[in-house]
Amino acid sequence: MENNLITEIERDAVYKTIYGRRDVRRYFKSDPIPSEVLARILQAAHHAGSVGYMQPWNFIIVEDFNIRQKVKESFERERSEAALLFDDEKRTKYLSFKLEGILESPLNMVVTSDPTRFGPQVIGRHSMPETHLYSTCCAIQNLWLAARAENIGVGWVSILKREDLRPIFHIPQHIAIVAYLCLGYVTCFPDQPDLERVGWGKRLPLENLVYFDLWGGQLSQERKELVSFFQALVNSHAQGSP
Amino acid sequence: MENNLITEIERDAVYKTIYGRRDVRRYFKSDPIPSEVLARILQAAHHAGSVGYMQPWNFIIVEDFNIRQKVKESFERERSEAALLFDDEKRTKYLSFKLEGILESPLNMVVTSDPTRFGPQVIGRHSMPETHLYSTCCAIQNLWLAARAENIGVGWVSILKREDLRPIFHIPQHIAIVAYLCLGYVTCFPDQPDLERVGWGKRLPLENLVYFDLWGGQLSQERKELVSFFQALVNSHAQGSP
Repeated sequence: MENNLITEIERDAVYKTIYGRRDVRRYFKSDPIPSEVLARILQAAHHAGSVGYMQPWNFIIVEDFNIRQKVKESFERERSEAALLFDDEKRTKYLSFKLEGILESPLNMVVTSDPTRFGPQVIGRHSMPETHLYSTCCAIQNLWLAARAENIGVGWVSILKREDLRPIFHIPQHIAIVAYLCLGYVTCFPDQPDLERVGWGKRLPLENLVYFDLWGGQLSQERKELVSFFQALVNSHAQGSP
Repeated sequence: MENNLITEIERDAVYKTIYGRRDVRRYFKSDPIPSEVLARILQAAHHAGSVGYMQPWNFIIVEDFNIRQKVKESFERERSEAALLFDDEKRTKYLSFKLEGILESPLNMVVTSDPTRFGPQVIGRHSMPETHLYSTCCAIQNLWLAARAENIGVGWVSILKREDLRPIFHIPQHIAIVAYLCLGYVTCFPDQPDLERVGWGKRLPLENLVYFDLWGGQLSQERKELVSFFQALVNSHAQGSP
């Protein structure tokens, strides 16, 4: 099976894609995504691992403009409601952000998860029944990276109410709605996440998020060097290579 | 920003990695994962998108053998309990499966998600508060693919009780435990998922999982060709290229 080893050059392409992926809300071009490309992206999603091999996901490709208009209305309502929770200064900022590309992107997608698929007994779901949702998120990340590898931007819109989406798409009650995505070719992939660029947030230093053996556990002597490797990676990334 | 376009060769490396990723429970070698490699994998995880840029994840690197022994005991209990839910024939099969590599792999990892990080008001979490868990799963899939790109196997063990893990790792009550992973170099990455190879399950035809505009909606004339592209990809994959 040596032929399925990943070479260093291939590895670096994976890192380039991971570091270059963005949550895209602007820069969408109207060019349609060819079916051949869309097929590759969906097959990549479908090749995520899943608990007990249950493959709980479904993908609704959304092109209809009237349907998208209804989704956009849900977004507007939710955005206004959420805005009330911020203080004045933050609210003005929040409302100035572009947080979705529902109508501008050529294609939207609903990703759902079916907890009953191959049920009721699925290997590995007895102790943690919600793992089917986690599998579906892994599929979404595969889709996101495959899209980036095709130079297609993806934006995940979470400012939406499930109770609004369910009747719009006729989704049965037992199906979990996991994600609403906007996809399309873009004019650029910015170097930084939007919320970092506009000064809303910063990437946390990774060394603060990694523990050793126990929650809060310091990196032991043997793994202390991890911290310097983390920092070296941040520096090389800042210079444009991952 | 043309320099961050992904080339076709790079794209194919991403697909090779996505198709070649496995949920690994056997074939682990005892060789340690060098800190430099582990740092790259963790930085890849840390570069997932997250709702409101909240980066809710933590990673506990677990090397201590006594701690892993306790986790293994939880696994054994949960496995026995779940086995009772299958009929006789399936139970014998289930109990014959290798479903974890807790002690054989050189490194385990707990991945958690903190719903209070940057809280209480995080952009995009008002309508769907559980999205922090989805972000953490996206980070896990980044980690999984980065590990595969480093020729390191990862197995996600979900046959574990959170109530067992929490005291073992001293994880605070408000932190969500998302995943327990086993990592290590492997002697091989099989072509098929384990559960497919042993005849427990099959990959579903993707065309049955993709709808158009509405739940259950048939692919319209314009997107009907997707089905043939799906099938072409399955065939080319069966021949060893993605």
